[in-house]
Formats: sequence, C-alpha cells, structure tokens
Amino acid sequence: MAMPNVISVDALLARVQKIFENSGVRPESAKTVARVIVAGERDNCKSHGLYRIEGCLRVIAAGKVAPDAVPEIHDAGKSVIEVDAKGGFSNPAFDAAKPLLVARARETGLAALVIRDCLHFSALWHDVEALAEQGLASLSMCPSYSFVAPAGGKVPLLGTNPIAFGWPRLGETPYVFDFATSMAARGEIELCRRAGKPIPEGWAVDRNGNPTTDPEAALDGAMLTFGAHKGSAISTMIELLAGAMLGEFMSKEALDFMGGTDLLPRHGALVLALDPQVFAARSGRDPIVEGERLLDAINAQGARLPSQRRFEARRKALREGIVLSAAEMDQLDRFEKLGLAAISG
Amino acid sequence: MAMPNVISVDALLARVQKIFENSGVRPESAKTVARVIVAGERDNCKSHGLYRIEGCLRVIAAGKVAPDAVPEIHDAGKSVIEVDAKGGFSNPAFDAAKPLLVARARETGLAALVIRDCLHFSALWHDVEALAEQGLASLSMCPSYSFVAPAGGKVPLLGTNPIAFGWPRLGETPYVFDFATSMAARGEIELCRRAGKPIPEGWAVDRNGNPTTDPEAALDGAMLTFGAHKGSAISTMIELLAGAMLGEFMSKEALDFMGGTDLLPRHGALVLALDPQVFAARSGRDPIVEGERLLDAINAQGARLPSQRRFEARRKALREGIVLSAAEMDQLDRFEKLGLAAISG
Repeated sequence: MAMPNVISVDALLARVQKIFENSGVRPESAKTVARVIVAGERDNCKSHGLYRIEGCLRVIAAGKVAPDAVPEIHDAGKSVIEVDAKGGFSNPAFDAAKPLLVARARETGLAALVIRDCLHFSALWHDVEALAEQGLASLSMCPSYSFVAPAGGKVPLLGTNPIAFGWPRLGETPYVFDFATSMAARGEIELCRRAGKPIPEGWAVDRNGNPTTDPEAALDGAMLTFGAHKGSAISTMIELLAGAMLGEFMSKEALDFMGGTDLLPRHGALVLALDPQVFAARSGRDPIVEGERLLDAINAQGARLPSQRRFEARRKALREGIVLSAAEMDQLDRFEKLGLAAISG
Repeated sequence: MAMPNVISVDALLARVQKIFENSGVRPESAKTVARVIVAGERDNCKSHGLYRIEGCLRVIAAGKVAPDAVPEIHDAGKSVIEVDAKGGFSNPAFDAAKPLLVARARETGLAALVIRDCLHFSALWHDVEALAEQGLASLSMCPSYSFVAPAGGKVPLLGTNPIAFGWPRLGETPYVFDFATSMAARGEIELCRRAGKPIPEGWAVDRNGNPTTDPEAALDGAMLTFGAHKGSAISTMIELLAGAMLGEFMSKEALDFMGGTDLLPRHGALVLALDPQVFAARSGRDPIVEGERLLDAINAQGARLPSQRRFEARRKALREGIVLSAAEMDQLDRFEKLGLAAISG
C-alpha cells in the first residue's frame, strides 16, 4: 500500500465488514455482506461494488431489513432445501444453507435451494461460483422490481430478473454467466436522462407501448427484455419459478410492498445445484473433461467466454490491490465514522 | 369428413401409426411417434408435423435408428432418473420414464430425467405439456447439429439448441414456451437461398465471421444465436447441461457422428421436473394461483402469451379436423403403401 488509494482485498474486506458491524449487522452476516461487496469491487463490477454499501445501510436505517436476522434452515430430507432469511440479506442465508445444498446435490444428483424472505442486492455470480468451486453446475435466479413489460405489452410486470449459470472447469475459473433479462439496467436509462442523451432503440417503450429513445418517456413507460419474445418468455419463467413457485413475491408485489424503488427489493430466490458426476456416471465419460472441449473450442476461435473481463480484474486486484478514488476513500471513512448516521443526511 | 382432405385427429393418428408399424417400429413406439407427429400437425406446427414422417423413415431406412428399441429405465432412487433409448427415437423413451419422473418430482420436489442415446426429431413442448398436465413445472433442453457460432466467433460449435418450459395453469392450457436458441431455423435460410432472397441481418456470419445477409455465405459460415451474447451463453449452457453433463454428444459430436445433416441427430436430452406444491408448501400460498395473477396480467395488457397460436390451432383441429393438401394426402397414401420403399427413390 505505497499509494493511499490502493488497498488490498483483505484490508478492504476488514473495513467494509466493520462498517456493517457498526451498523448493527451481526458479525457473521456483516462478514458475508462485506465479502460479496468487496468481491464486486475486486472484479471491477462497480455497480455491485462499494457503491452497494450505501443501499444496504439505507434499508437498515429505514428498518426494512433485519440486520441481526439468523437464517433458519428447513430441511425435510427432500431435494428441496429451504432457508428463511427472516427479512435479512440474501447472502448470509445462502452461505448458511450452502453446505447442505452441496451435500444433497452430491447425494441425489440435483437439489434446489429456496431462499425465503430476503433483501437482495448482490449479483448472482457469487452463488454459482461458490457451487462451481464444489464441482457443481448451478442455476440461480430471482425477481426484482417490475420495470419491464412483456413482449407486445406496455405495462411493467416483470423485473430485470437476473439469471446466472455456473459450470466447473479444469484448472480454470468456471464458466459463468450472470445477466439481467432486461435489455439494459434501469440505471443506464437514468444516466442517459441526466446526460440529456437518447437511449438506444429496443431498450424501452413509452406508456402507450410505442418504441422510444427518450429516456424520460422510457422511465415513464416500460423497459424491454433482451431477445424480444424469447427473452420475455425467459423473464416470465423467472417470475414463475423464483416468485410464484416459492410462494414469495413476484416483481410487481415486491414493488408494491416497498412502495417505491428507493430501497432494495424484498423477495425470494431459487438456486438449482446439479452434480455432473452423478448425471454422467453411467456414460463412462468425464463431464468436466467433455465440457472443456467445447469451452476450449469457443476460446480457440477468439470468441470470449462470459465473465472473462471480471476474472482478469480479479487477478489484477489480488496481485496489485484495488484502486479506489479519493471520493470512494472519503466515503469509506465517513461510513466508518458515522455508521447509519451517514445515511440520514 | 365430408371433404376428402379433412381428417380427424384420431383418424390421422391411426394412419401415421400404421405407417411406422409397417416400417418396423414396434407398436408402442409407433404409437408415440405418431402421436407426436400428429400433435405437431394438429397444432399447425407444419415443420414438426407430417413433414417429419419422411425424416423418421429415412433414419430407419439408413439403419441409423433402432426401430424396435425398448427403452431401458435406470433408477438408483436418486433425483436423477435415466432412460436409455438404446438408439431409438427419444419420445418413446420419455413416455416410458414419465410416470417415474412425475412420482419422483412429487416425492422430492424436483427430479431430472436423462434420456440417453436417442434420435431426436420432435419439438420439446410435448414433454413440458405432458408434465404440466400432471401439475409440474418443467424445463427441457437438448443439443442438435452444430450450425451456430458463439457470440464473437465464426466457427459453428453450438446447435440450434432448443429449450422449453412448462407451467400448469388453472383451467387453461399451460404456460409453455419452446424455442430454438438460434435466431432462425436453418431451413429458413435454405428457403431464402432457393428464393434468391437475402436473409435478415443478425441471422448469420460468413466464414470469416463478418455479418452477412447472403444465404449462401450464411450456410457456408455460421448461424447466430438469438439475444447476442446472452443467447449465446444460454445456448452454451444447453451444450453443457444436455450434452457434456450427461456424457452424451454435444452438437459438434452429433454432427461428426452422423457425418452430415441429412439424417436426424443422435444425442441425449435433459428434462427437469419441479413440483410447485412442494416448493411453495411452507409459504401458505398456492403457487398456481400466484402464477395466474402474473399470466392474467400479461394477457390483460394485450401481450400474447407464448404458444397461443398453437393452442388455437389445436382447438380448431379437434373441433373441425385437420385440413391436409392433396399432396400431403398423396404422400400419406404412398408411405402407407410402400413403407420404407417410399424413401429409397
């Protein structure tokens, strides 16, 4: 740490953890939440990095999250394991249930984790990477706030509904994708609005359902999914599987419940974990070696696998530390000194 | 049947079944294959209707499918059930294993069916609709022949890799989507080539990886997925889950194995079945009623749910019969009279 604005991953982790502990988050959860946020910063996902601290503190200050919640696991010995976040953040609940999910998937070939009643702020790649480290393939999905209209419609009903997939690789970072099923993030439209710039075609419709490139009209209308009717179908599936099927909020209910989008959404989440070794056993082939052939061939033709930019940023950060701006350092200091009082202003 | 070219669904089923029986397909499999083909015709999916008879007869004539294969179920009591199609068509294997898949999903919340070593010619909505009738949500996916390049690439590695999802509804046809993860079907490009028309932008790249609207250059190059890098990621996931994970062929291997695209591909398939009642049990909410709220709201804003055109065609066909062209009737007669000999010409 020769320069004041370069900080090691571990040092940043300790600082962020302290901020959450000082804000009433129980130490185990503070550690998990800090790890997730610092991982975002480390991977140069700025939208899921330190930027998220404020959003987390705001739901604590608003009394909309239970900072001391202890996740409660419910296991009836089936392939579906449940963890009740009890109104806390989703990540401590996932961490609490992960060992059981991994064990069940290895035992039976596939298992599902239902996360109930959580506040969600993190990217989903954390979950699928953690499972890939255990040799498991996985899918993770959740609803969000309803900003997105179904294909052919104009009323927001769907969330930006992210979906992530992980697949373990041999001596490599895993194959991981994690994307919103909307064409863009709402924040990107907001940035265009502030800059007085039009948004690209295909991102949104106005309140009458007409295509628009005007960010004001878009924010007043509805965002669109990626991939036209196919993306819309996938987003609808996420509402059904990670909302209706769990008996947890879908994106519209999540928005109605919070009464606005200033705070993080409360809903459930679904994670499916599959053990390729169980699935492939009778074939006599090694599923991970098989996968390498495809992934190597994709790489060999110069087509980039998803998440590579993130993994490169990670390697650099672990080697050289994380570079933070003076404003980011100041904000860390402020959060550390003032805790929740930093939010009220 | 006042007019000679209107035939009832049942009468058509009997005729198609007879054609397959006469071609050496064991009666139980002939019934299933005929049911699947007639269902395609009934739903006005012409590309998966009677048109498929010839393709099925051709693989029989070529000795590339085992018409008398008896599917073999392997159940180790886990959440993963396997059925070995033993080189036969996929649908009889699915039918044979379906009762066990349904029972296991109800018992444990979710279960997977691995179909091994099958020839695949049908749409995937058959599987997910059959499971929706049993009150289950499901996902079905499989590789195909490698015609599609990954995003940013130019060499075909991915198949048109279909994915289907089904969700049961209250007193309604289920929520079902079933689509190729490619932008278009290869047949659509071929039709443009024959008509001397350009293909739309975004469908394909030439052999150097440059975007092309020339169908010749497209067929010589590679098709593209829907939804840019997101669709490419989903297609890659299908290769991994329904190919590598099962220890069955991925799309490139399927093509290498058959040595060309004249015959149906041989590979595996993956079906995941989830019981919403098990997932929702602790929530106290009825997952199907929850789903209705979303699906009704999509309908209410005039956004069409997927598969509706198909369901409308089905209702009409069941009420009024299926209308076939004179050429289609002639071909049925010919297949019925000549059996496999109709193919050699």
